[in-house]
Amino acid sequence: MRARWLKMTVAYDGGAYAGWQIQPDRLTVQGVVESAWREITQESVRLSAAGRTDAGVHAHGQVAGVVTESHLPAEDLHRGLNAVLPDDVVVLAVEEARKGFHATHDAIGKRYRYQIHNGRIPSVFDRHFTWHYPRPLDAAAMHVAGQSLVGRHDFASFESAGSERVDTVRTITELTVARGTGELAEQVTVEVAGDGFLYNMVRVIVGTLVEVGRGARNIDWPPEVLAARDRRRAGQTVPPHGLILVRVDYE
Amino acid sequence: MRARWLKMTVAYDGGAYAGWQIQPDRLTVQGVVESAWREITQESVRLSAAGRTDAGVHAHGQVAGVVTESHLPAEDLHRGLNAVLPDDVVVLAVEEARKGFHATHDAIGKRYRYQIHNGRIPSVFDRHFTWHYPRPLDAAAMHVAGQSLVGRHDFASFESAGSERVDTVRTITELTVARGTGELAEQVTVEVAGDGFLYNMVRVIVGTLVEVGRGARNIDWPPEVLAARDRRRAGQTVPPHGLILVRVDYE
Repeated sequence: MRARWLKMTVAYDGGAYAGWQIQPDRLTVQGVVESAWREITQESVRLSAAGRTDAGVHAHGQVAGVVTESHLPAEDLHRGLNAVLPDDVVVLAVEEARKGFHATHDAIGKRYRYQIHNGRIPSVFDRHFTWHYPRPLDAAAMHVAGQSLVGRHDFASFESAGSERVDTVRTITELTVARGTGELAEQVTVEVAGDGFLYNMVRVIVGTLVEVGRGARNIDWPPEVLAARDRRRAGQTVPPHGLILVRVDYE
Repeated sequence: MRARWLKMTVAYDGGAYAGWQIQPDRLTVQGVVESAWREITQESVRLSAAGRTDAGVHAHGQVAGVVTESHLPAEDLHRGLNAVLPDDVVVLAVEEARKGFHATHDAIGKRYRYQIHNGRIPSVFDRHFTWHYPRPLDAAAMHVAGQSLVGRHDFASFESAGSERVDTVRTITELTVARGTGELAEQVTVEVAGDGFLYNMVRVIVGTLVEVGRGARNIDWPPEVLAARDRRRAGQTVPPHGLILVRVDYE
């Protein structure tokens, strides 16, 4: 049989999952997608993925790579997977990929979104996908403060302990903080795009910008945190359920 | 003790509930709000409500009336209720009302919204609050067809069996069907406002307009259904989880 490389785009509500990465005796997104694959092809595969999202983190556009010997057309695999997957995991696309495609190693950029419900009263409808922060936040100050993080920097201050990574230099290409208007006036959205992210990096960045937004720190503080290369200097790691992996880019 | 009338505005995700109205041995929204009231005031009350939303139906702005002997300030009641309510029910406001206020009898208008996810692939993020309808819908045709229902009419064709109502004449003041744009291009939203609604009326109206939207019927069909005064002539009752009671109006 000839091997064949496929690229899958997957959306999920991470609320019920111990993250993307497969673990024994835990419900993981990778685990349910690999089970679905086995169910429709009778083939055991191991998926590569662009981002190992943590427990509770969501994805609009996670990308997973698979090497398969199945001859089923991509469209049939796509329909078959969605027919057997639970309703909190949906495959958005299955495409043929170049020989050797690896979703982790070939990714050249990722975009994350963090949603904050910044109103006094919690929102019933957004509660699974936004973090409720009841005290007033100055989104404009957060945006200005965040611009100091854009560019190529050593983000050691923004990496949670427990990672094995040695190289903590990454490039953030874009960081925006904006408050919605009209019905969305209580929603503050942080979007961060870059070439790669350290463990919990987006959540620590948001936690740091929230310190500025609530007035505890001024806009000159995030660059100080960055320069310190010390996790203890940064803000809290905000909760996972506000975080969404929006998109992964490839060449 | 002097009786005191209060008006509460309540939002809820109806997914876990057997509807608003209290029932023995069933989880209902009224039941959990009355329990929360008892927990913070040690007083048993019976709430009146503007709309007896069915099992699975949601509310942005349900209105409930309460007659109480509590002397607690409205703001303390508000905060206390939200502290003990589950996270799928939130009190948005507690206000003093005029003597004799009754949320059901005093309502002069209501607005409902029905959300359809009209894309081939289901949406992970909207799945609790939108009905997934995968085949193409012509929202403009649905809008045009719906205008025949605006005004004062006998809506007997749009009432599910099982109601005890004798008078089936109601006035719809506004009915719009619109497709979203940009990221929301797969979302079709039906909004209906009127002086009152029969049992399942909004869901039968939507089911009837969907017949037009999918091309099975033309835009002249809804007025024929209306004139027939026969439930068997109308479309299906669409699922509850797409329906939201948006607002209730009082004098």
